[in-house]
Amino acid sequence: MSKLKIEMKSPIHMCENRVLYGDTDSGGVVYYGNYLRYFEIGRTELMRQEGISYKSLEEDGYILPVVESYSRYKSSAYYDDLIQIKTSLAYIKRVSCRFNYKIYRKSDQKMLVKGFTIHAVVNQSGKLTKMPEHLFEVLNKYSQI
Amino acid sequence: MSKLKIEMKSPIHMCENRVLYGDTDSGGVVYYGNYLRYFEIGRTELMRQEGISYKSLEEDGYILPVVESYSRYKSSAYYDDLIQIKTSLAYIKRVSCRFNYKIYRKSDQKMLVKGFTIHAVVNQSGKLTKMPEHLFEVLNKYSQI
Amino acid sequence: MSKLKIEMKSPIHMCENRVLYGDTDSGGVVYYGNYLRYFEIGRTELMRQEGISYKSLEEDGYILPVVESYSRYKSSAYYDDLIQIKTSLAYIKRVSCRFNYKIYRKSDQKMLVKGFTIHAVVNQSGKLTKMPEHLFEVLNKYSQI
Amino acid sequence: MSKLKIEMKSPIHMCENRVLYGDTDSGGVVYYGNYLRYFEIGRTELMRQEGISYKSLEEDGYILPVVESYSRYKSSAYYDDLIQIKTSLAYIKRVSCRFNYKIYRKSDQKMLVKGFTIHAVVNQSGKLTKMPEHLFEVLNKYSQI
Repeated sequence: MSKLKIEMKSPIHMCENRVLYGDTDSGGVVYYGNYLRYFEIGRTELMRQEGISYKSLEEDGYILPVVESYSRYKSSAYYDDLIQIKTSLAYIKRVSCRFNYKIYRKSDQKMLVKGFTIHAVVNQSGKLTKMPEHLFEVLNKYSQI
Repeated sequence: MSKLKIEMKSPIHMCENRVLYGDTDSGGVVYYGNYLRYFEIGRTELMRQEGISYKSLEEDGYILPVVESYSRYKSSAYYDDLIQIKTSLAYIKRVSCRFNYKIYRKSDQKMLVKGFTIHAVVNQSGKLTKMPEHLFEVLNKYSQI
Repeated sequence: MSKLKIEMKSPIHMCENRVLYGDTDSGGVVYYGNYLRYFEIGRTELMRQEGISYKSLEEDGYILPVVESYSRYKSSAYYDDLIQIKTSLAYIKRVSCRFNYKIYRKSDQKMLVKGFTIHAVVNQSGKLTKMPEHLFEVLNKYSQI
Repeated sequence: MSKLKIEMKSPIHMCENRVLYGDTDSGGVVYYGNYLRYFEIGRTELMRQEGISYKSLEEDGYILPVVESYSRYKSSAYYDDLIQIKTSLAYIKRVSCRFNYKIYRKSDQKMLVKGFTIHAVVNQSGKLTKMPEHLFEVLNKYSQI
């Protein structure tokens, strides 16, 4: 219950994305599964802004697989909409973290979708492992500002 | 909390799908957003088995947009895996319904992902509306067997 | 010119696929890039029928990356259409091969899309390499029947 | 033959895009069908730069469906690559036009994929129709600069 509550804690990272034809479906709106692509953009760019490339994390042997995802669809995004993806870190633990997302249409600031993803930290053999120290520090700071 | 519990009530509809290269990502596994495509297959085929084509529902002016989706990723599906999508109707109301899903790899019967989608019933102008009687009867029977 | 001519040589492999909502776009038809997914289904199932799993080829260290693809869109596929993917081997060489495809809607046998993919044979370090003998024999036989 | 030659005529429109996890496949590279998404970005942004929104074209009753697409895959794009999509107008006629594309990785300027799309101009009942005058003028100017 409270798990499904999506609160955005400062600081909130924001980036923009244009809805492609290829993101939509014949209902005339963005296909429901494609919002998880937008969530990926949100968390990746949040980390990049903090100096962490998810790609280099992987090269260091750490993977952050999604273990849970949730989306609440409030309103539809349409072809060619410029959307704003707002991402915040909900919590961070030694072996997991959670990101919250809210997606808005830029033109009318309508909230379209909110949701979360929960990630484990595993090594390349797939075993749960502690988050690398610099990632923990950066995200932990992020979660406390 | 209890909302995130995924129970499969009889009868459980089952269908199979082959994992394409195009479903996977460079982590070597199915991209997390693509399970929502598999959920779509599950609920569509459940309805088709009961004699209801989602397409003809739309032609009659009814749309069942997804208002919430949730996935719990337990294990990874790989390229070329034959997966089993098990779908059951969790509940049905006059203006909404919920499907639960469990996805297994056929070869080792490992459970890969479970989740749910909740759907509203709206008309073509997007207003919440009552489910057509024959759909309600079919699904309601389904949910009580 | 003649390269863009799509002829189907016997034997033609045929398989079926159902168009998902997630395959379509807000133009109400299948998104043009998604036909390349259907082509993937076609060539994979052709090989599987001949006893060759593309996955096990990869496990043996051979990769068949697409080096060219072409599609000619004749008519639109719609949501929930059952399509027939017809695939034939256009030619096979020691280090490459080409598949031709024609996709039809089952209900009215309308041809929707035709096209081809050309594949190189490379090893895991990405170097052009000779096709494994059993693959060559199987496909070569296929191309001569 | 000459049809498959991809030449970029000035002016060349350029835009950038980040490769998502969701664009890649378990081969570790961008899935071959997803380059057609990048082509879509290229032509849409070229038109937008010239003051033409494809969305508003549609609202005026004109559709530019893809009738042919071709891709030549030269080198692989990887997860998190920043790619440059270069687009030029190859020709424009009253009822059709062709865009050429070349996609580069920004970091090393390696050319990854080149290709084209050919588009018809149809009205909302799907009949071939003349391109609206302002679109023709803008693109024609573009093709002659």
